[in-house]
Amino acid sequence: MSVTSHDVARLAGVSQPTVSRALRGDPRVARATRERVVEAAAALGYVTSELGRSLKTRETRQIAMVADLENPLYPVLVPALHDAFAQHGYRMVLLAERGDDMDTYARLLDRSVDGAVLTTSLLRSSLPLRLAEQGMPFVQLNRTSELVDADAVTADNVAGGALAARFLLDLGHRHIGAIFGPEETSTARDRERGFRSVLDEAGISLPSRWVRRGWYGYQDGRDQFLSLMKVDRRPSAVFCVNDHVAIGALNAGIEARIRVPEDVSVVGFDDLAMASWPAFRLTTIKVDFGRMAHQAAELLVARVKHPDGTPRHETFPVALSERSTHGKPVKDRLPA
Amino acid sequence: MSVTSHDVARLAGVSQPTVSRALRGDPRVARATRERVVEAAAALGYVTSELGRSLKTRETRQIAMVADLENPLYPVLVPALHDAFAQHGYRMVLLAERGDDMDTYARLLDRSVDGAVLTTSLLRSSLPLRLAEQGMPFVQLNRTSELVDADAVTADNVAGGALAARFLLDLGHRHIGAIFGPEETSTARDRERGFRSVLDEAGISLPSRWVRRGWYGYQDGRDQFLSLMKVDRRPSAVFCVNDHVAIGALNAGIEARIRVPEDVSVVGFDDLAMASWPAFRLTTIKVDFGRMAHQAAELLVARVKHPDGTPRHETFPVALSERSTHGKPVKDRLPA
Repeated sequence: MSVTSHDVARLAGVSQPTVSRALRGDPRVARATRERVVEAAAALGYVTSELGRSLKTRETRQIAMVADLENPLYPVLVPALHDAFAQHGYRMVLLAERGDDMDTYARLLDRSVDGAVLTTSLLRSSLPLRLAEQGMPFVQLNRTSELVDADAVTADNVAGGALAARFLLDLGHRHIGAIFGPEETSTARDRERGFRSVLDEAGISLPSRWVRRGWYGYQDGRDQFLSLMKVDRRPSAVFCVNDHVAIGALNAGIEARIRVPEDVSVVGFDDLAMASWPAFRLTTIKVDFGRMAHQAAELLVARVKHPDGTPRHETFPVALSERSTHGKPVKDRLPA
Repeated sequence: MSVTSHDVARLAGVSQPTVSRALRGDPRVARATRERVVEAAAALGYVTSELGRSLKTRETRQIAMVADLENPLYPVLVPALHDAFAQHGYRMVLLAERGDDMDTYARLLDRSVDGAVLTTSLLRSSLPLRLAEQGMPFVQLNRTSELVDADAVTADNVAGGALAARFLLDLGHRHIGAIFGPEETSTARDRERGFRSVLDEAGISLPSRWVRRGWYGYQDGRDQFLSLMKVDRRPSAVFCVNDHVAIGALNAGIEARIRVPEDVSVVGFDDLAMASWPAFRLTTIKVDFGRMAHQAAELLVARVKHPDGTPRHETFPVALSERSTHGKPVKDRLPA
């Protein structure tokens, strides 16, 4: 005769619904109670059946996170997403994005998850559009596709780019360079737009010899910075699309004996933990990824419950983190 | 009338088994074929049912990874695990370890996964024991519990600790300090054992005023290094339990104007990507986490298919990565 949750409840001295809640990890169940329930379940050899429950409710209580596992941003998003979903009783399945929309789509199509968090959308990604067509709930986090109107949580990247440009102008820089990101992502596009618009308004040109473009990694920053420092007349400041690119640039500076900020100022974007390390002390634009991830999880859980309704797009403010990689342009610091 | 996989097969011009394989992401199906199948499935509004399949086979085709999401090592393990499991048609669910065995156990008990990779075991963790009692297949990766004999993949941490000690002795160091890790983990215990055994054999003492102990993070390294540098007679070299602790130490050195290696040598353990950055150029012990994670996935997939049989414990060799944070002890470098 198979063991039921009622047997477990009797042995643990709790109600049957408490058994279910305790084994689901519901935070409303006290730790001591949960331990008693788990001990009782183990003693009786009781196992719950998520499969049976799923079939009954058509819910899987699972959310997929589509992520580029090589991108250093994703470890920042994962803990916040995981915990927010756990609060609502959802687990998180990781789906690595390998630049193949079709493959990811096929893996989401099988109804093994109730919804998805997309963190790797390109502006022309077909995945969000396909999911919308199939009625699969999803939220876009950090990056968005321009092909679909759907729930999204992003930083105010335009404002952040503008903030960086205004900061460099206020320091007196007029010869400004940039290592921008891939044009096919909304984050790189918006940061570049904001940055360029402030320079345009101020009548400061951004000549192409001072512009580089790469992906988001350390190595991109290193390579593009070295290339930028080889031009005949160097810029006195370089804006980087994100902190990893900026940290690649700072390390390239150490390698090539280019002093920051004495020879050139560097400004990043994101404010990752390592930006504050003494080896870098990177001046950067702060993005609150923890709160953004939490909010994305909330939007998605609500969307799973209410698939219809107007898409919501929430934009989080950014701020300047002033540290030690910026200064006045070189000529202003020469002895009078 | 509901759409079946046969309808999809007909529209895509492939066999029905190919439809199943393509939608499962089986790598044996060519990319062009998979795209045709996915297009056909989308056009017909066909959705596969993982739930139905699971109930039929009692397999979930899911593996849980139990990880400490705040530990900087886990982003190194995740991509390799994810890809190895994907090759075998398994998805990966992330379960964050919050230092609560009971909670993790309850979440694994519901049979929503076929097996688990445990990366956060403490020596006295009850989780592996409980899973073994319940017949849940699992593999321990990097760290192991001493309460159970089960499949495990670890680095040769004893040899690595010994290698670091011998290297410092060969450089001429006799005043050696250490920032060890938590005694309740097998990795910290084994690295410390190996390190101490070589010093013992050489008759070099490791006085307690030169020993610190912390957790595995950047902040631990920073704090313990500063504390170690405040003693009256400093050691001329410091061994760190891992790279993040060592990088915390290097940053603390920058902060406190203690030069590495001029004033003190620092040796890490792991050889993470950032160890090679010009800002650090950390001398460290190289661990091949990518291969270890891959092997752990292989062991687990085999264990799911054959739950019985002798547990296998595979140990991966380590090697010295010589960079720039080591030198001869200070007195040897004084002018003659």
